[in-house]
Amino acid sequence: MRSAELESYLAECRQLTLREIREIIPKQGRNRTRLYDLILEYPLRSAKALRPALCVATCRALGGHLESVLLSAAVLELYHNAFLIHDDVEDGSESRRDGLTLHRQQGVPIAVNVGDAMLALTLEPLLDNMRTLGLGKALRILQVVARMARESAEGQAIELEWVRDGNWHLSDADYVRMVYKKTSWYTFITPAIVGCIVAEAAERQTVALRKFASLLGIAFQMQDDILNLTAERERYGKEIDGDLWEGKHTVLLLHMMRTVQAEKRRTIETILAKDRPASLATAVPSGGDGACADGAALSRVLDDLKTRGDLSLAGWRAIRAAMQSSSVHSNGVKTAEEVQYLIDCIDECGSVPYASQVAQRWASKARDVFDEVKDWLEPSVHRDFLEGLVDFVVRRDH
Amino acid sequence: MRSAELESYLAECRQLTLREIREIIPKQGRNRTRLYDLILEYPLRSAKALRPALCVATCRALGGHLESVLLSAAVLELYHNAFLIHDDVEDGSESRRDGLTLHRQQGVPIAVNVGDAMLALTLEPLLDNMRTLGLGKALRILQVVARMARESAEGQAIELEWVRDGNWHLSDADYVRMVYKKTSWYTFITPAIVGCIVAEAAERQTVALRKFASLLGIAFQMQDDILNLTAERERYGKEIDGDLWEGKHTVLLLHMMRTVQAEKRRTIETILAKDRPASLATAVPSGGDGACADGAALSRVLDDLKTRGDLSLAGWRAIRAAMQSSSVHSNGVKTAEEVQYLIDCIDECGSVPYASQVAQRWASKARDVFDEVKDWLEPSVHRDFLEGLVDFVVRRDH
Repeated sequence: MRSAELESYLAECRQLTLREIREIIPKQGRNRTRLYDLILEYPLRSAKALRPALCVATCRALGGHLESVLLSAAVLELYHNAFLIHDDVEDGSESRRDGLTLHRQQGVPIAVNVGDAMLALTLEPLLDNMRTLGLGKALRILQVVARMARESAEGQAIELEWVRDGNWHLSDADYVRMVYKKTSWYTFITPAIVGCIVAEAAERQTVALRKFASLLGIAFQMQDDILNLTAERERYGKEIDGDLWEGKHTVLLLHMMRTVQAEKRRTIETILAKDRPASLATAVPSGGDGACADGAALSRVLDDLKTRGDLSLAGWRAIRAAMQSSSVHSNGVKTAEEVQYLIDCIDECGSVPYASQVAQRWASKARDVFDEVKDWLEPSVHRDFLEGLVDFVVRRDH
Repeated sequence: MRSAELESYLAECRQLTLREIREIIPKQGRNRTRLYDLILEYPLRSAKALRPALCVATCRALGGHLESVLLSAAVLELYHNAFLIHDDVEDGSESRRDGLTLHRQQGVPIAVNVGDAMLALTLEPLLDNMRTLGLGKALRILQVVARMARESAEGQAIELEWVRDGNWHLSDADYVRMVYKKTSWYTFITPAIVGCIVAEAAERQTVALRKFASLLGIAFQMQDDILNLTAERERYGKEIDGDLWEGKHTVLLLHMMRTVQAEKRRTIETILAKDRPASLATAVPSGGDGACADGAALSRVLDDLKTRGDLSLAGWRAIRAAMQSSSVHSNGVKTAEEVQYLIDCIDECGSVPYASQVAQRWASKARDVFDEVKDWLEPSVHRDFLEGLVDFVVRRDH
């Protein structure tokens, strides 16, 4: 399937999914809140709707019906968007899908609650499945979704602990274990299994498609890491180099850390231990974080004043101490030069071509599995879409 | 039921619930994370376990069995603790159950994820109910829990919007509508309904017990508001006057705002529009908020330096501007004097006795409903516990 056809398959699924999501959102009575408008905020931005499309394509390629799978596909998209909102808070991300992240726009309190509300809305449609799909299928879908929610939280926990502990001594195998939980399970494995359940796939078909999905998920996340560093801002919709500012454990950064000279590695660890600049925290429109001042900007002003003699050394020390006492733990904030240094090291170590190669290898494993599966699937646009995903995940530029 | 007996009923249910929660938490393999230790953090602190106790007591007073209801009761306690973690983030709370709030202890990123993980763990046990309770009961419980999650998020959304919009012109009826969603649904209504479902209560019994629970929930939250202002720190386990620092819409504050003279009201609105001091944000051990400086402390140092001549007026202005530009939206932070001013106004308006009276009125409505229900219930410690709750919710000191 050519790229344009794949995009149009995605776009069509996205429209169908959005219609379902609007149906899921409760109609409001007199206690009207903006909550349900905010739930649509991320889904209405330029999203790929990859998860519902994979779910629909799997189901239909196995002979299942669109109307049987669409509600579950929409629920997976709701889950995805809820995870995005909470992940953006957790990672301190600035932008998402060509706009501010929800917590930058609405504040952390409202964003966390919008995510919770989306999670809350997933349960009723999955129970409604009992009427349309019958008890057995509905239950199996509920069980898979329960596992998915758990795997995702575990994957996120693993990475947050690495961040907190400044743990950079990690192999590709460590990375893959984390990504399998954090990305593959909800982005690929669950949509594929749900499609299989609805279409009544045979056990060995489900096993194979699940394996296909797991492998694709790894390749997809590696490409995501690469795009975050290399893609142009307009195209990708996330802040470029955001992963470096946030100190995320990407396949690129881990490769560079394993490859770079020892003395550089110590410098890099110092940089990675620093926070990103506080523009995030300061722009939050409400809540306890409001009174934060940007440490880096303040520091520059203070240094200028001291140099010009507008501020005595004693005064400078007193202000620094006041800043210090209110951010005791901080290792300072990263500068643009430091992030550029990280990029230079990544280039020097050849980590982008390395990551690209590894991503291709995972995609190629996925292709091998697909070749075994292919004959079971009906020749159709749906089967072509699944096959096209293999190239898409590693060749996409957004 | 005397207070000591009620406490011991609660304590016993708490032990049983904790045992269930430990069973629900997955055993870990090689990808061990601290996630599942952190899930136990709040439940292991000095919690009342009111929700599981109400669920168990309702079930058993209707002739149901402990072993049938315990898993669902534990799930409700998990939900409660997940809500607490996220609410503490959303409200910027400092302490919870005699300790730091989870986000103060672990950082916002880990705390949000621990809450999500707890929510993720609720689904599998509710599906397991099918084996032990049968399909019908298990499904009804799932439906009630789905509604509960939605009502709670809507209630939280209503209050967060009031906070964000600085909306203080609210009646007791507005407050009750918010609290019904935010507190009654998950603290009282759902535990009672789940108890009814497991014990196969008749429809009119369920309707009556649900009404009893709704009314108790309102009284309970009003008493919670009062305790937050009046209780001694050691006993209550939350920061005292925390609601005032956070600018929460308590029954006390809303009464005061309706009662106080117009010119004072304007002063109060200015105070309430201010953030709480940023000690919260600054103590968070990781994430983007790390570089925050405490605006109030810095301001004092700057003013001192200017007075002493250590800092020129131009310098003072430059620093203030740097602070300003990095917290454009901020209305400044509340001081202890300003919070004391709020307390004085609350005293002056008689808002504590007013709230106490209104809470008694809701409790007394609950008692009237209980008197209708009582004859259907088996004379037992469980029935006595339910009856004892009426006094407990408005007389408790923690």
